[in-house]
Amino acid sequence: MRAAIFAGPHDIKVGDRPDPVIVAPTDAVVRVTLTCVCGSDLWYYRGLSSHAPGPIGHEFVGVVGQVGADIHAIVVGDLVVAPFKYSDGTCANCRAGWTSSCVAGGAFGTDGFDGGQGEAVRVPFVDATLVRVPGSGHSDGTMRSLLDVMPTGHHAAVSAGVRPGSVVAVVGDGAVGLCAVIAARRLGSARIIALSRNPARQALARSFGATEVVAERGDAATEAVLELTNGVGVDAALECVGTAQSMATAFAVARPGSNVGFVGVPHDVEVPLDTMFSRNIGLRGGSAPVRTYLPELMDDVLAGRIDPGRVFDFETDLYGIAEAYAAMDERRAIKSLVEVEAV
Amino acid sequence: MRAAIFAGPHDIKVGDRPDPVIVAPTDAVVRVTLTCVCGSDLWYYRGLSSHAPGPIGHEFVGVVGQVGADIHAIVVGDLVVAPFKYSDGTCANCRAGWTSSCVAGGAFGTDGFDGGQGEAVRVPFVDATLVRVPGSGHSDGTMRSLLDVMPTGHHAAVSAGVRPGSVVAVVGDGAVGLCAVIAARRLGSARIIALSRNPARQALARSFGATEVVAERGDAATEAVLELTNGVGVDAALECVGTAQSMATAFAVARPGSNVGFVGVPHDVEVPLDTMFSRNIGLRGGSAPVRTYLPELMDDVLAGRIDPGRVFDFETDLYGIAEAYAAMDERRAIKSLVEVEAV
Repeated sequence: MRAAIFAGPHDIKVGDRPDPVIVAPTDAVVRVTLTCVCGSDLWYYRGLSSHAPGPIGHEFVGVVGQVGADIHAIVVGDLVVAPFKYSDGTCANCRAGWTSSCVAGGAFGTDGFDGGQGEAVRVPFVDATLVRVPGSGHSDGTMRSLLDVMPTGHHAAVSAGVRPGSVVAVVGDGAVGLCAVIAARRLGSARIIALSRNPARQALARSFGATEVVAERGDAATEAVLELTNGVGVDAALECVGTAQSMATAFAVARPGSNVGFVGVPHDVEVPLDTMFSRNIGLRGGSAPVRTYLPELMDDVLAGRIDPGRVFDFETDLYGIAEAYAAMDERRAIKSLVEVEAV
Repeated sequence: MRAAIFAGPHDIKVGDRPDPVIVAPTDAVVRVTLTCVCGSDLWYYRGLSSHAPGPIGHEFVGVVGQVGADIHAIVVGDLVVAPFKYSDGTCANCRAGWTSSCVAGGAFGTDGFDGGQGEAVRVPFVDATLVRVPGSGHSDGTMRSLLDVMPTGHHAAVSAGVRPGSVVAVVGDGAVGLCAVIAARRLGSARIIALSRNPARQALARSFGATEVVAERGDAATEAVLELTNGVGVDAALECVGTAQSMATAFAVARPGSNVGFVGVPHDVEVPLDTMFSRNIGLRGGSAPVRTYLPELMDDVLAGRIDPGRVFDFETDLYGIAEAYAAMDERRAIKSLVEVEAV
């Protein structure tokens, strides 16, 4: 099969990989129809974190092509969504809902597992990992809304304790930040302040439910948010970038007793522990337990209540994968969609 | 009046201070009957944090001696408990319950305010700050249980999200850690693992509700807790010290998706952000909003359901204050009680 291959920083190729086959009776092979580039992919693309040369990508939707002998939840031909990590569904962490910490789990595109950015993927622990999409004939907009960027935005909001009536700030206007706006609205926020300098992203944030937009950065952004909140700060700060500046801004706008929910993979970030202590600001988040969140979010997508697929503003096919990365790297695109046509 | 005076590291004297008087109509003067030394007092005592020379101490119980013209909740002669910080009760933070972040508030024994370790204290914002103790003729054990160490232990448990059925580890066997054991039990924990090497403190922890004791430290303590929890870790880790080692241990024993509740004033502590992210472990805590917690905790003390006053194992009078500090500094005492007899 053909698949995207990481050859080194700023060097994504399309190459040949062995066709996936069933190895364990709990495996399935999924033929990928849609995949995309994640903000976290940019870290190794830019050479800022390490990644083994080889298959990449971890967000995909597809059709089940083969199933092992011990699969009960899906059949060949089913339309399925994959979380970015596979999980066994039976360990103590999975049973508690923390599928991203499954003791037998791992991420697609690492440790020899196929990446989502390719024609097919061997999926382990299928009954616990994949989520079947009910119905058929879904629109293109619906299908792209099922890719797993929304669960990470949702995780920011859940981690920060957003609830009905909350006043929320969202730091970061990337795809995850924009999905965090959707999530904050979905959970009943009274006000959502989106931090964004980019007019197109500001408009999308507003259409997703942001009630206010702050275009400043750094200290000026903090001042603007405090001014909007009578000097008090917000009930929940959603940190969706992972840089020192975004984390600092999130803590600076968080009111005493509030929480910072963080989902941007942190790089060179210092946690302001003295601020956390003196102002009782909690910090919580991390790698989203996507499998746990998918069913409820899929319900809302299929019912048309949320449409996170609108974050995709760059489309290509598998042969355009290098450009899909470059467009996001250069901030020409919020998020790149890759439509895969199996040969 | 006579009051304890901080003269420098390891140098606590008893000296003269002006008799407190009513300055604002919302002030009262409280004649102190019981005060104590807080673990946080040891930081400046040891020269590890700064404190202006002058009055010290912030935990006290006493009798109201004078009230300003605009006081409604108490009258002269009332028995009262003070939180370690005064708060106005009207700002946005106070209204949200975060009295320790009152915008007009501050701590006793700082910024020119009388310390609790003295014969009398001018208390500002009295209606919002002091809590009246109902009834009379309370036992010595009851009175010492009302001093505000218990609310800080409670804050560790609340911050870590302890709830019925939780499996909890308490890191730290000082007075706050021991009160955290009481709090964890009070909130319905199924298991409470206390980390302590000291036989007397182990015994007290068990009598407060600890179901298991781990005597190891560092990596060995982590291994022991993981062994007790089938390798999973605990649902809530209560960090009650504030050192790099205690924070590291708390994170190491916390299971994915759990929370570390921290109430030890942090000194040279690094937050393991990568661990927080990869395992979704939250961190929350800080300066306890004592005023908010006092009423419910006082109810339990007066009803005899909890007896945190048993953490006091050293008693003296105001003239013995230097020895009260030394006993805690040298770990001869868990916590020092100071009975104040006004001249």
